[in-house]
Amino acid sequence: HQPAETSRQRHREADLVRRVVASFDQTPDPRLKELMQQVVRHTHAFLRAVRLTEAEWQKGIDFLTAVGHITDDRRQEFILLSDTLGVSMQTITINHEAYENATEATVFGPFFVEDSPRIPLGGNIAADAPGQPCWVAGTVRDTNGQPVPNARIEVWQADDDGLYDVQYDDGRTAARAHLFSDAEGEFCFWAVTPTPYPIPHDGPVGAMLTATGRSPMRASHLHFMVTAEGLRTLVTHIFVRGDELLGSDSVFGVRDSLVQDFVTHPADHPTPDGREMSGQDWTEVHFGIVLAPG
Amino acid sequence: HQPAETSRQRHREADLVRRVVASFDQTPDPRLKELMQQVVRHTHAFLRAVRLTEAEWQKGIDFLTAVGHITDDRRQEFILLSDTLGVSMQTITINHEAYENATEATVFGPFFVEDSPRIPLGGNIAADAPGQPCWVAGTVRDTNGQPVPNARIEVWQADDDGLYDVQYDDGRTAARAHLFSDAEGEFCFWAVTPTPYPIPHDGPVGAMLTATGRSPMRASHLHFMVTAEGLRTLVTHIFVRGDELLGSDSVFGVRDSLVQDFVTHPADHPTPDGREMSGQDWTEVHFGIVLAPG
Ligand SMILES: [Cu+2]
Ligand SMILES: [Fe+3]
Ligand SMILES: [Fe+3]
Repeated sequence: HQPAETSRQRHREADLVRRVVASFDQTPDPRLKELMQQVVRHTHAFLRAVRLTEAEWQKGIDFLTAVGHITDDRRQEFILLSDTLGVSMQTITINHEAYENATEATVFGPFFVEDSPRIPLGGNIAADAPGQPCWVAGTVRDTNGQPVPNARIEVWQADDDGLYDVQYDDGRTAARAHLFSDAEGEFCFWAVTPTPYPIPHDGPVGAMLTATGRSPMRASHLHFMVTAEGLRTLVTHIFVRGDELLGSDSVFGVRDSLVQDFVTHPADHPTPDGREMSGQDWTEVHFGIVLAPG
Repeated sequence: HQPAETSRQRHREADLVRRVVASFDQTPDPRLKELMQQVVRHTHAFLRAVRLTEAEWQKGIDFLTAVGHITDDRRQEFILLSDTLGVSMQTITINHEAYENATEATVFGPFFVEDSPRIPLGGNIAADAPGQPCWVAGTVRDTNGQPVPNARIEVWQADDDGLYDVQYDDGRTAARAHLFSDAEGEFCFWAVTPTPYPIPHDGPVGAMLTATGRSPMRASHLHFMVTAEGLRTLVTHIFVRGDELLGSDSVFGVRDSLVQDFVTHPADHPTPDGREMSGQDWTEVHFGIVLAPG
């Protein structure tokens, strides 16, 4: 960290850090003590490194106050802030170390809903959601390559207008469902081809993105949560190879291993289940899921 | 920082930090770019050092949400959080380097009010505030020892019940005033002997203090703001030597150089201005103020 210019001043600053850290010495819970003392160390290291001015401190207070005031039961601006600073993705990365060939995790996001509709294998999660049909197929395996039957596969996505069903006011359920892998671990379903959408950017986090020349757009993706007995639950996305937003995803959720080939077929190309496309192009993607041991 | 165990995992984490830092590379304002990139570096260093769990991340989000929701026009819980983590005091320390023999600065606090009553030299700031009378006298000088006439001296303090006037609902003005140093730079006034008071601790910051075994009490103090033409404005406190809270001030505002002797006199000891104490003990303190060049 860039130090103050004189040793007297360095001593004043370091002595304050020492006193604040020591104030947490009597914390009964050792983990809470560690967390608080490290929050103090890193926050003060930041202040000292940038030589924060009093006006900047006030702007920081004002920013956090605005984040707090826009947050309610439906809008969580602190999570948006965590997401856009990569804090959410780093927490996922720390807690989901890469395990052999297991599929990597990424951010959960705010749009998962419990009790999604169940669809059969080959069913359609889209319901009324607008979008280009997309056939998704794959197999769930463990890290030894053994198929995992009866894995619960939750899938959810934004529609072609960039919105999740819960972002509409009409209570609709669309573009989300769950299904189970078959006896050979295989699964397949219809969805819509993922398209980019912005995270909510009309609040203070959106203002931060604008001020720093960043885009609120998320790279196109389809959410998965896969659970199976005795295996580690996987929360992830698949991304679309060739999407120009892969390098600038606003929440840093992209991993190379999660980028998949979405192959476009003309309307008259036979569909896997005989579905009639009535003039509409469609896409097809394969996703081999590998679950780590529980 | 305590690293992850495998080099593959260290690489995953460091690569994410690199990507998040790079996302701010196009920030038009170079200072904002520096601030954001350092926020990212230190926040991620914290996450990696403590190996933050997903449950702890959620608790952090919930805590900040509660801090945001209790904050309104009269209650600023983010400032309380900054104060209790020593962030406010570190910002003061960074921006007010010790200058030769100049009086040191400390935190401003939330209880200053513009347009305080003016009192004459020897006047009483207490108004109706309950408390033991305290005679405060001193001289304002520059760092060469020259007296500073006509310096504006703002003083404010809590009453004997630990409350500032603005914390009452009745609109009273008490225990705050301003006066001016005389032609020799001297000043004197009556106040009340400072007593300890807690910062507001019925919210999430109070819960944090309780969970970490810390006290919300501030060491006894009297606030000063001193302004004079051509000299640096001084915002500071004086503290009471012997106060057992000097080592555990909840906002880390104490500096050794600001601790003063408050001498107690019996009621029948003659007062400097002939004030009649009618049976009440009183105290006396001298505070030599030295202002740095502007
Ligand atoms: Cu750090
Ligand atoms: Fe999403
Ligand atoms: Fe105070």
